[in-house]
Amino acid sequence: MTDKAFQDYYPEELSHCYGCGRNNAQGLQLKSYWDGEESRALFQPEDKHMAVPGFVYGGLIASLIDCHCTGTAAAAAYRAQGRAMDTKPPIRFVTASLHVDYLAPTPIEALLEIRGKIIEVTPKKVIIEASVMAGKTLCAKGKVVAVHLPESMLKKMKGE
Amino acid sequence: MTDKAFQDYYPEELSHCYGCGRNNAQGLQLKSYWDGEESRALFQPEDKHMAVPGFVYGGLIASLIDCHCTGTAAAAAYRAQGRAMDTKPPIRFVTASLHVDYLAPTPIEALLEIRGKIIEVTPKKVIIEASVMAGKTLCAKGKVVAVHLPESMLKKMKGE
Repeated sequence: MTDKAFQDYYPEELSHCYGCGRNNAQGLQLKSYWDGEESRALFQPEDKHMAVPGFVYGGLIASLIDCHCTGTAAAAAYRAQGRAMDTKPPIRFVTASLHVDYLAPTPIEALLEIRGKIIEVTPKKVIIEASVMAGKTLCAKGKVVAVHLPESMLKKMKGE
Repeated sequence: MTDKAFQDYYPEELSHCYGCGRNNAQGLQLKSYWDGEESRALFQPEDKHMAVPGFVYGGLIASLIDCHCTGTAAAAAYRAQGRAMDTKPPIRFVTASLHVDYLAPTPIEALLEIRGKIIEVTPKKVIIEASVMAGKTLCAKGKVVAVHLPESMLKKMKGE
């Protein structure tokens, strides 16, 4: 892992995401990194993230997969363009579709490892497969189709 | 809608879910109700739930669909058994798989309407299709396969 996460390269105004924005003090602040050809993030759930006592709620798993995969999509797109992540224009992906299979109850005390594997990179979209491990237990598998942040969102943000 | 939500019938010890537990003060406390043959919930996102300024992050949408559908699955299972929701034994579902298609950016200021449509009810699982509307805009569609809370989770909760 390197010191700077994928999400640390997001422009300031696009770094407020509840799941992974460094500028969202109340959010999860997920951070994703390259680990060879795959990407990797670690996340420690808090007690409040429970489904039932002792286990993580499904929405957190979905959120971690979602943000890890859009981050990985951005990193993969920079790489496909042969560009470093601190070069312009910035690349920021959002989720077109998310699929999660919950394979085993996720213990809330475990440090979770989220991994992403790049399946496809095209100019319009990136497809990522994800896994969520608690120790040696595969708790969830996911798949995300990520697309570039729509112009309509940027325009509304700028008040246009 | 009736006064008491599906989630209000969950047993005390199974009402801590971050997404929908009445006993989770820090959670979303989603509440779902019958609306004819479908189910319905309303949710007002907070500022912190943003993806980028002005829009809801995808993990919240996934969480709302998830909890609304597991609640609807329980309600549908009681109904299939011809039982009222305050009768025993309690029925509590968890998510086996979750799919979300994000169709339009979800404005953060909008009161969201989550609807569930029951596709299949068997003794082992319930399949629900969901939609998330912001006013007249269909922001997301979802599909959940819900299964009964595993015995292993109950045992661990009881310290067995």
